[in-house]
Amino acid sequence: MLITLLTDFGLTDEFAGVMKGVILGICPQARVVDLSHGIEPGGIYQAGLMLAASYPYFPLGTVHCAVVDSGVGSKRKIIAASHGGHFFVAPDNGLLALALADNPPQSAVIVENSAYFLNPVSATFHGRDIFAPVAAYLAKGVALKDLGPAIDWQEVMSLPFSRASVEKGKIIGSIVAADRFGNLISNVSAKDLRSLVEHTRATNLEFNLSGKTIFGLSRCYSDAAHQSPVAVIGSRGYLEIAVRNGSAQKFFGAKPGAEIWAMPGRPKK
Amino acid sequence: MLITLLTDFGLTDEFAGVMKGVILGICPQARVVDLSHGIEPGGIYQAGLMLAASYPYFPLGTVHCAVVDSGVGSKRKIIAASHGGHFFVAPDNGLLALALADNPPQSAVIVENSAYFLNPVSATFHGRDIFAPVAAYLAKGVALKDLGPAIDWQEVMSLPFSRASVEKGKIIGSIVAADRFGNLISNVSAKDLRSLVEHTRATNLEFNLSGKTIFGLSRCYSDAAHQSPVAVIGSRGYLEIAVRNGSAQKFFGAKPGAEIWAMPGRPKK
Amino acid sequence: MLITLLTDFGLTDEFAGVMKGVILGICPQARVVDLSHGIEPGGIYQAGLMLAASYPYFPLGTVHCAVVDSGVGSKRKIIAASHGGHFFVAPDNGLLALALADNPPQSAVIVENSAYFLNPVSATFHGRDIFAPVAAYLAKGVALKDLGPAIDWQEVMSLPFSRASVEKGKIIGSIVAADRFGNLISNVSAKDLRSLVEHTRATNLEFNLSGKTIFGLSRCYSDAAHQSPVAVIGSRGYLEIAVRNGSAQKFFGAKPGAEIWAMPGRPKK
Repeated sequence: MLITLLTDFGLTDEFAGVMKGVILGICPQARVVDLSHGIEPGGIYQAGLMLAASYPYFPLGTVHCAVVDSGVGSKRKIIAASHGGHFFVAPDNGLLALALADNPPQSAVIVENSAYFLNPVSATFHGRDIFAPVAAYLAKGVALKDLGPAIDWQEVMSLPFSRASVEKGKIIGSIVAADRFGNLISNVSAKDLRSLVEHTRATNLEFNLSGKTIFGLSRCYSDAAHQSPVAVIGSRGYLEIAVRNGSAQKFFGAKPGAEIWAMPGRPKK
Repeated sequence: MLITLLTDFGLTDEFAGVMKGVILGICPQARVVDLSHGIEPGGIYQAGLMLAASYPYFPLGTVHCAVVDSGVGSKRKIIAASHGGHFFVAPDNGLLALALADNPPQSAVIVENSAYFLNPVSATFHGRDIFAPVAAYLAKGVALKDLGPAIDWQEVMSLPFSRASVEKGKIIGSIVAADRFGNLISNVSAKDLRSLVEHTRATNLEFNLSGKTIFGLSRCYSDAAHQSPVAVIGSRGYLEIAVRNGSAQKFFGAKPGAEIWAMPGRPKK
Repeated sequence: MLITLLTDFGLTDEFAGVMKGVILGICPQARVVDLSHGIEPGGIYQAGLMLAASYPYFPLGTVHCAVVDSGVGSKRKIIAASHGGHFFVAPDNGLLALALADNPPQSAVIVENSAYFLNPVSATFHGRDIFAPVAAYLAKGVALKDLGPAIDWQEVMSLPFSRASVEKGKIIGSIVAADRFGNLISNVSAKDLRSLVEHTRATNLEFNLSGKTIFGLSRCYSDAAHQSPVAVIGSRGYLEIAVRNGSAQKFFGAKPGAEIWAMPGRPKK
């Protein structure tokens, strides 16, 4: 009966704490784990990536509650879904796209049944009034279908670069986030790269970002020379571009959304 | 058996964690929830507002332990109180004034019985040595009266603007905090405004802050035009003044303590 | 079945949360307490001091898991130890030196048995893949000796100033950290000072730091005059040098590693 929280509420205000009060009032035996409350305001990609990288490390049955929701008060929907033994509650704004990119969830509904909300629901704090109680009721065993009508996953909002695409023997992916060290994290998964290697029988890889080439996939950051770029599979399971003792974000001048290519390696000039 | 913590200790140091160690040593089944450790040093109003806005969302029986206490080591008293099924432990510095403003607590004592403290008590960290163990013992079922002598709530320190006052058909309140977005939060509650509307039979309201008038009470921040001020009932249940896509704190040049008036609305010129 | 976490991972990323997911998957009844995730990257002394100051306040049987580990991916060892009824898991980089300075642990092993790791182990995130599962298995009752071969504590990495030394009637210690207020924290313990007083029969003490003398040991920070330096036993049980309403770090220009002397007090000139 675990519930994770992922928000852009920060830790200065009491918002995350109040969500826990609501959760523990409804489901006293729940255990609440903070994934992060430090998402940049509205940082849907950053949150989606963290969620995708984190949820497989939690026990089956965990409810993952993500509130990065600049549309609070508007007509955006809230989605609850079941996927691989995990439950997810999030705004319908693409936040779940990366976590559920591999295959559509077994079941998804639009959260509409106000019997599982606080009463009244404020116009400004759905984290407390809707997300927290819904996550608590899911942890308590309420069925998805009781929360609202089923929704076809095709109709749920996706993100422009929730999946890297593969074409003609190369992968075209995107940078989805930069971390505090300036490392650039892409949506190209370790699995995507393995599949590329299998298809092209490549013996090595190279990567292209912002017109610059990075030769080879390294095992860890420290495989690169001082101030040199390096491509690694980060601990989240996605291709990351880093600069040893430096910032890839500055080195490449690349921002979330930038295109990154992976392809069989040519002989180094 | 929930305990909430609200301090100005920050999260860099180990202070909040050590309080939890002490609590769980005394009451292993307690669940500890952080409301915030990011209160500005000595920010009694900020903490008082957060506590007032948060505690009703926790289950009955929760112990709320607030340590914003620049008087540590001095002769300031520590108060424990029971109010509406909740327990509170805080320094006698006004921190509880806003949370318990509606009516005096059922019971309040001066925390003096060192049998419920750590031994020895340091001169500098009462959060660990007094507040944490006292909260844990309360969660464990120790009666208030065992902690020390009863105190008349009239003698407990209040704050200059713990309640807005109503006179001659208007409310005179105060700004008590600014949040990270520069929104200004007042001590005028939704209930105060409802009562004003009932008494004056006003069909709309207006607000005056720093010589500027805000017309009407809006439902949410986005009801205002770009860079314009807006008055809303925030999710905490208090009147907030915001500026759409801007900072009310800068716009009004107002600080905690500034006077804010609410009155029946005149026709807009 | 308490587990504490102490890392330099920060709270923006999901790393600490993921460790908790791993822990609770292995040992669902564990309670996880954050000591701090705000250690400066690689801040071994800062972490070691926090751990030394914190662990005695936790119940016996607590597992303390500290990951400040710039050597991740290299050949540095991981140590697990049992000491005074507490368990510790940390890199072999000196982090445990201050906490276990008084006497060697009852038992210490090199953590090598991958049966208690996640599989696979990444090259970059041992907190998730090794430290979290090992801490969880210890909390679950796995014996130290099952984690790997015993190691002689003499072979475990210590730190240059993990203990103050006593010679010819004075104590030569070191500044090991500065806190957010600029207070300088030393490795001279209250016990060291008591022992000095007993040996020298001193009636007062004085301290020398960066060529400046501080006369007398005070009870709390506020015993000093405005902008004046003061020596106190901080709440962590170690000698601290502070400046009233100022920063000792700036006042003395002292950094971690600076030498501090404690000796019987001379008459004040």
